[in-house]
Amino acid sequence: MSVSAFQHPYLSGLVGDDETAEVFSVKAEIDAMLAFEASLARAQAACGLIPREAAELITEVSRVFEPDMAQLRMGTGRDGVVVADLVKQLRRAVEKQAGSTDAATHVHFGATSQDVIDTALVLRLKRACNIFIDRLMSVEAQFAEVDAKYGSRALMGHTRMQAAIEIRVSDRLRAWSEPLTRHRDRLVAIVETGLPVQFGGAAGTLERLGDKAAAVREALAKELQLTDALHWQSQRDRLVDLAGVLTLITGTLGKFGQDVALLAEMGGEIALAGGGGSSAMAHKQNPVAAEALVALARFNAVQVSGMQQSMVHEQERSGAAWTLEWLLLPPMVMATGASLRLAMELVGNIKSIGRA
Amino acid sequence: MSVSAFQHPYLSGLVGDDETAEVFSVKAEIDAMLAFEASLARAQAACGLIPREAAELITEVSRVFEPDMAQLRMGTGRDGVVVADLVKQLRRAVEKQAGSTDAATHVHFGATSQDVIDTALVLRLKRACNIFIDRLMSVEAQFAEVDAKYGSRALMGHTRMQAAIEIRVSDRLRAWSEPLTRHRDRLVAIVETGLPVQFGGAAGTLERLGDKAAAVREALAKELQLTDALHWQSQRDRLVDLAGVLTLITGTLGKFGQDVALLAEMGGEIALAGGGGSSAMAHKQNPVAAEALVALARFNAVQVSGMQQSMVHEQERSGAAWTLEWLLLPPMVMATGASLRLAMELVGNIKSIGRA
Amino acid sequence: MSVSAFQHPYLSGLVGDDETAEVFSVKAEIDAMLAFEASLARAQAACGLIPREAAELITEVSRVFEPDMAQLRMGTGRDGVVVADLVKQLRRAVEKQAGSTDAATHVHFGATSQDVIDTALVLRLKRACNIFIDRLMSVEAQFAEVDAKYGSRALMGHTRMQAAIEIRVSDRLRAWSEPLTRHRDRLVAIVETGLPVQFGGAAGTLERLGDKAAAVREALAKELQLTDALHWQSQRDRLVDLAGVLTLITGTLGKFGQDVALLAEMGGEIALAGGGGSSAMAHKQNPVAAEALVALARFNAVQVSGMQQSMVHEQERSGAAWTLEWLLLPPMVMATGASLRLAMELVGNIKSIGRA
Amino acid sequence: MSVSAFQHPYLSGLVGDDETAEVFSVKAEIDAMLAFEASLARAQAACGLIPREAAELITEVSRVFEPDMAQLRMGTGRDGVVVADLVKQLRRAVEKQAGSTDAATHVHFGATSQDVIDTALVLRLKRACNIFIDRLMSVEAQFAEVDAKYGSRALMGHTRMQAAIEIRVSDRLRAWSEPLTRHRDRLVAIVETGLPVQFGGAAGTLERLGDKAAAVREALAKELQLTDALHWQSQRDRLVDLAGVLTLITGTLGKFGQDVALLAEMGGEIALAGGGGSSAMAHKQNPVAAEALVALARFNAVQVSGMQQSMVHEQERSGAAWTLEWLLLPPMVMATGASLRLAMELVGNIKSIGRA
Repeated sequence: MSVSAFQHPYLSGLVGDDETAEVFSVKAEIDAMLAFEASLARAQAACGLIPREAAELITEVSRVFEPDMAQLRMGTGRDGVVVADLVKQLRRAVEKQAGSTDAATHVHFGATSQDVIDTALVLRLKRACNIFIDRLMSVEAQFAEVDAKYGSRALMGHTRMQAAIEIRVSDRLRAWSEPLTRHRDRLVAIVETGLPVQFGGAAGTLERLGDKAAAVREALAKELQLTDALHWQSQRDRLVDLAGVLTLITGTLGKFGQDVALLAEMGGEIALAGGGGSSAMAHKQNPVAAEALVALARFNAVQVSGMQQSMVHEQERSGAAWTLEWLLLPPMVMATGASLRLAMELVGNIKSIGRA
Repeated sequence: MSVSAFQHPYLSGLVGDDETAEVFSVKAEIDAMLAFEASLARAQAACGLIPREAAELITEVSRVFEPDMAQLRMGTGRDGVVVADLVKQLRRAVEKQAGSTDAATHVHFGATSQDVIDTALVLRLKRACNIFIDRLMSVEAQFAEVDAKYGSRALMGHTRMQAAIEIRVSDRLRAWSEPLTRHRDRLVAIVETGLPVQFGGAAGTLERLGDKAAAVREALAKELQLTDALHWQSQRDRLVDLAGVLTLITGTLGKFGQDVALLAEMGGEIALAGGGGSSAMAHKQNPVAAEALVALARFNAVQVSGMQQSMVHEQERSGAAWTLEWLLLPPMVMATGASLRLAMELVGNIKSIGRA
Repeated sequence: MSVSAFQHPYLSGLVGDDETAEVFSVKAEIDAMLAFEASLARAQAACGLIPREAAELITEVSRVFEPDMAQLRMGTGRDGVVVADLVKQLRRAVEKQAGSTDAATHVHFGATSQDVIDTALVLRLKRACNIFIDRLMSVEAQFAEVDAKYGSRALMGHTRMQAAIEIRVSDRLRAWSEPLTRHRDRLVAIVETGLPVQFGGAAGTLERLGDKAAAVREALAKELQLTDALHWQSQRDRLVDLAGVLTLITGTLGKFGQDVALLAEMGGEIALAGGGGSSAMAHKQNPVAAEALVALARFNAVQVSGMQQSMVHEQERSGAAWTLEWLLLPPMVMATGASLRLAMELVGNIKSIGRA
Repeated sequence: MSVSAFQHPYLSGLVGDDETAEVFSVKAEIDAMLAFEASLARAQAACGLIPREAAELITEVSRVFEPDMAQLRMGTGRDGVVVADLVKQLRRAVEKQAGSTDAATHVHFGATSQDVIDTALVLRLKRACNIFIDRLMSVEAQFAEVDAKYGSRALMGHTRMQAAIEIRVSDRLRAWSEPLTRHRDRLVAIVETGLPVQFGGAAGTLERLGDKAAAVREALAKELQLTDALHWQSQRDRLVDLAGVLTLITGTLGKFGQDVALLAEMGGEIALAGGGGSSAMAHKQNPVAAEALVALARFNAVQVSGMQQSMVHEQERSGAAWTLEWLLLPPMVMATGASLRLAMELVGNIKSIGRA
């Protein structure tokens, strides 16, 4: 309950983000996996591979099904992935609802664990990206407001940790804001085409679907409102690339945080509302959000290295490389959400910048 | 509740570790911080800095005090660290218990946030190290058992991903086990002298304790059964060094996991009990624990980079570098605990190795 | 002469790449910096800021000027950057050629070190990207050839380090080749718009050029055949993003290498020409290029973390973050060049793949 | 010739270090490998495995032998390691000198590439460590001098990027210097026992030496003045641990650099001799060495991650993991040498610190 600062009961007050955390909650994860199974059944029914009634029943049960978590935990420990046990539980629920085993046998037909996990991940990453796109626009708008108010003021430019020549506040704001627009453009492109459905079956060949394979995948993508694409189970570049964009976002905001902390330390050119108190020194007003932005930037800059390591994904499915992604990507998404939240807070707290 | 795989409801079945998680639970964290405050009061009473009755009252209240978590979260978001709010709450509880403000004013006297956080961390790291020392001994003993049974058998040696010449199973076991002894020696040394108490006050000078500063620190260390040392608040090398040793442990176990996975894939020289099932292929028996060991090795190898980055800890206290540690070190400890747990499980599952 | 394996007298036989090394030679670096100075002079002459004769003279001298390296080394040690000394030497050369100081005073007018270094870097990165685009097309074409010959053959699919079900050679080839096309598309986009001229003057304001600033920058970009853009001296995201794409390339090729090494180790499904000899075992044929691809993938995956760290580029110019880039980016470019060279060699050495 | 800033014709003025570079020169590398071959021959002669005359001849030839570099490069590209070709050349030279093939057949007897490469590395790492130990003592002594002069002066303490309370200059100096002593102790321990000879033969079993194996290894270690130990070819923890200590050194010096840069930026509390000029602003005096210390700290903090990744060293010898070490460790050693050189320079340049 407290290993991860992002979901720690009180550290999350500093580096948490409720909206992003919701997208990566277990509930959202299980909902996404069940949405995959239900959508798959409907897609296969539409293509004539399984009975329409079975698909309807699977859909209906999926909507209300609540898996036994202790069982899932045991299954994950044994199989390295939750899907085998989840599917078993879901089949049992369908069977119970139907009063017979018929429909249950059609659950997860032709699919493999990775289809479920990766597609469920993609569904949630898309939601997270959309949150981040909105927030990037907000931060950019906030910077524009600061620019409108204070942009023409003078600010001492510093190069190599030395006062250089005077610049305008606008100049500094441009360095903070302009890259965010580029990052946002990248996220938009990723949301549009960079997060396709994953559906390949045991080893990527969809061998049990015969000549209906492509049609089912297309229908499945449509059900889930995802881009259709050939399976990419051992091609992890899209996820790694997204991790890179998240790190660019936290990096740009880390520069903003570092600059604000330096302005606050040198004094005279910035006034901030808020700011943290000290347990030992009542007179201090610490630029807490600014420092947290630096920490989150360095955090993601560390993690992205592991995502890139996971590109060496051997053969048709690497348990090692895949598990590594699970350890790294959700915290990176959280760090990005927290960084954007803190950036909005920090820009909002700029009461004045530059020399009047 | 699910961003971190280490504490995820079902992924923790794969990469969690209950015993280690307990050490890094919020309860353990708060207990350790309260132990600091109570020990400090007693140390200061012993040195005549505060009344003995106040110390007794603070100790008594600390034992049962349960802070308001929502308040702590808000305080952490504002101050960047939980201590100011925790101390405020604790003072109020002492005041309530005493029926007057006298004793309450002696809580946290002369101390700063970092004293509390760092010392509370050190107390728990020591516990974790002791768990790991025990587990390392277990794994080494298990390897010795396997050696006793199968050590003299032949095994094909492989160099550069090619069969080379025959070796003995003992030769391979030595490569798996020998480094663990070196890592264990390092942990023992760290437990003995590498995790001292942190006590420096606002900026490291213990200025409010006058000529009693050293005596109080010594008494405080004794109370907490920690090594006494001058404050080290901006000297983070000991923690980073420990993170390095943890990564050596997971790295050595990662090599073990990789070797087992290769043995399993090539077949004929190892038989494993357990092994994970597949949602798509009933015939498979996946070397899940072996793969997880590789993932955890790569995970820690990534994180240690961030710990080393946090060495650039500016001035008397860097909010950015310190927060970065909070994001990185607990997951590293968890990964180490999980890796040792999985290693014990995996060695235990070796039913046979080498050619009879 | 031997710290870097990429330019080591004999290790470069393994991980070097002559064509890429040429782009990052000192000669190419100095040529690019002199091209900046000459182009700047011509752009300023065209805008009426300096006399046309001065620009012509500066251009003429820049073409043949060979700086004193020992002086440059001393200057770099003192100033942290080579430009101040290079400009001094160039001015002296122009003065000597002119027989008066007039033209010399116009050298480097209104520019700062970072304009020279960053633009000279961008010029060479563009060349490197174009080399890589060509090579990616080659590797993709080679994979297509292998597919034409062996694509329909059976290959044992492996998931989680266990034989799964049979796939086609085509299925495996798609996993190796398809991401390369995506990486190539990214490089093409970067070459087209992602590597703009850098021109900002002392602190980014081009304050000495008055209302001609934008016109000069546009003319300078045109002279150098670069995209025009506002200065980006403290916005490092474009370089970091490029580093990410390079790492995706080496990562994809690392997976290819790992897969080939596993095929070679398990035997029976691949036949390779070439392959390294052993100093101890005459019978071995090591998959050297395949292993080197894995090493280079992991190398870049490590370095990219540092490039992302350098995003926290404080104020108008960070000596620390900028120097860090210099340490990291050229080796990353070299690793990418070497990886592509080795990949072409390795695909070319596939004599047979799959089961006939 | 210029990919690596550490050996770049002019960037080495900033981040180079001649003394360390010499230890990692190709000449030193080849000398160390030849020393291995000659020492091995003498050790084997002493144990009666090869004729004394052969050992003498091999020793004699090794002292003057200069290999054909183009051949070595080609061999390294083919074999992934230089040794096979080097041994072939050396044998030919011995044969030529002897006028017969007898002695030549005894060259490299029972050894493998890794024995040569790893032992030659260890010999040079030991030299580098000794250089670093001396320099650490120098820096510590320099800090003690500064302390003697200025230690009692006041300095504004800063926590969380805010002025906190006054401290003494001594307090700050302690944070800079104290960890260096710990790092030095670690290096001393490593030099004493942490860098043993590597000698294992083809797959670690020294199978060709029969019951003389241990005696030869012991004699070999003695010849080379190295610790004797069982072969450790796939146990890379000692090298990784050393890389960790190097990173702690650069990290501690990075904190020193960061603090100096902040003192210089805020002004009033430090006066530095030297300092870099600007190509655009004559009035500036940039804290170049301080910034370079930060860059080198972050550089090593990045690289150490890759060293830890290389712990997953599969089977008896991993070409991939081993090559990765070659790419990472020499630059780390160079960065450490440069960092210590710059630290000595920077402390020497402190003309005054604190408030008089």
